[in-house]
Amino acid sequence: LLKEAFAAAGMEAQVGMELDPARVDYMVFSPRGQAEGFERYTRLKAILSLWAGVEQALPLVPAEIPLSRMVDFGLTQGMVEWVTGHVLRHHLGIDAHIHGLNGAWIDDKHPPLAPDRTVGILGLGALGTACGEALCTLGFRVAGWSRSAKTHPQITCFSGAAGLDEMLSQTEIAVLLLPDTPATENTLDARRLALMPKDAVIINPGRGPLIDDTALIAALDRGHIGHATLDVFRQEPLPKDHPFWAHKQVTVTPHIASVTRPKTAAQTIVETIRLHEAGEPLRFKVDRFVGY
Amino acid sequence: LLKEAFAAAGMEAQVGMELDPARVDYMVFSPRGQAEGFERYTRLKAILSLWAGVEQALPLVPAEIPLSRMVDFGLTQGMVEWVTGHVLRHHLGIDAHIHGLNGAWIDDKHPPLAPDRTVGILGLGALGTACGEALCTLGFRVAGWSRSAKTHPQITCFSGAAGLDEMLSQTEIAVLLLPDTPATENTLDARRLALMPKDAVIINPGRGPLIDDTALIAALDRGHIGHATLDVFRQEPLPKDHPFWAHKQVTVTPHIASVTRPKTAAQTIVETIRLHEAGEPLRFKVDRFVGY
Repeated sequence: LLKEAFAAAGMEAQVGMELDPARVDYMVFSPRGQAEGFERYTRLKAILSLWAGVEQALPLVPAEIPLSRMVDFGLTQGMVEWVTGHVLRHHLGIDAHIHGLNGAWIDDKHPPLAPDRTVGILGLGALGTACGEALCTLGFRVAGWSRSAKTHPQITCFSGAAGLDEMLSQTEIAVLLLPDTPATENTLDARRLALMPKDAVIINPGRGPLIDDTALIAALDRGHIGHATLDVFRQEPLPKDHPFWAHKQVTVTPHIASVTRPKTAAQTIVETIRLHEAGEPLRFKVDRFVGY
Repeated sequence: LLKEAFAAAGMEAQVGMELDPARVDYMVFSPRGQAEGFERYTRLKAILSLWAGVEQALPLVPAEIPLSRMVDFGLTQGMVEWVTGHVLRHHLGIDAHIHGLNGAWIDDKHPPLAPDRTVGILGLGALGTACGEALCTLGFRVAGWSRSAKTHPQITCFSGAAGLDEMLSQTEIAVLLLPDTPATENTLDARRLALMPKDAVIINPGRGPLIDDTALIAALDRGHIGHATLDVFRQEPLPKDHPFWAHKQVTVTPHIASVTRPKTAAQTIVETIRLHEAGEPLRFKVDRFVGY
């Protein structure tokens, strides 16, 4: 696919795992693959992460070689579908019908319409912004939080520590799409979970360490947080004996919210290299200081 | 609410159930309410249905009085949310995670992206078109069928009997939003269900008689149709002993896909009356011949 994508872009390229390291200009990298011997790649211009999250890649990649995050149509589209699906599922209360009402015809309870429901997105990067925009288009009130201040024509933007508290206090459905960095660990801790409205829902397709798991379980158990739908975990696969698996207010999905799909990712990789070869700064370059 | 809405529109109106019938110009009607004594309302200019579907109201309302269907922001918005939520639920395969995977970490199966999934909307009225447009915006391939030929910039339009067969043969997720008329009864019968791709999903927020229930259960049982999510039924409430309740491939929701919400409906009613009083033709007027 990568060879086809280079050919489609009119570029000549040698692609493969077996190339002479001394002749390689760009490396496509996932931390599941080879993670040593970088010193043999003497002319590397950049390393392109196959994943959007680079917290595992970053410590492995030599600091002097620029690293590019994966920002890709397929990855973003998949995340928008998964987030929108789970937000609507919780908004509409679909679970009760999937579990089955066993003959009970209860037709006098209706959720608010989306314009009366506030969804808060933690993280306004490529994924968070795309999810927020899709939810705005469906009619939801969307708030978004980012480390540094941002503005958006549709999303009510918050930033900084006080902004996060303010946003969480009005967020009925929270979607976590922050990067995993030392600064984001335990973003949802006991204090911040307590700020959220009763019966609030947490959706985490971001990274496991964003949540203090013990605090989350306590908040679920005392009935303050209504439900958590978790796609990512501190340890993956999630251990079979982890309490999340059996908790009635937790839905576990096995890190499938979105994946890098070869077809669109190949085009993204080729375009990133093409622009860099044309003299532009590396797209989606990771800032080692902030960690994403 | 209706009084407030009239006041907000700058109109003087007497509103109530206890008015002298001989002085009433407009009646807001649901077939659950009063359905006789129309002859006492000697100066009625129009009857405004509280519901989008008028198959129950139509036989009750005198033929000489024009009847208006409910076409309303809240009703449409609610339907868009419900349909989009259930389409995404089936598209993503969310049920497996809601039921719980019991410790099984299966992360190598991914649904296609929405641009590779075809949703077919049966009925391109106000509700069907709005749902189709929301699904287009999310990236789905959307096809739509209507009795008479229509065109739409995003939805691939089909019409007529042959068009329905052609559309169903490529529809992975079908959404039924046709009116209930003699011509639409058993639109999904055994023959047409068999035209659909294996594992196709049926979503019916329209009207119960659109589906041949026996044929649907047979198609589910032999594994041709994957799942049916049904909000409307030939008999409502759905009888407690109906096989839909216990069928593992059927999700029953109790006619809640969308409701007429007083706040927005009051504004819609006032606007329909305002325009009619200004000399315009009655909005959303029911054609007695076609039945909607």
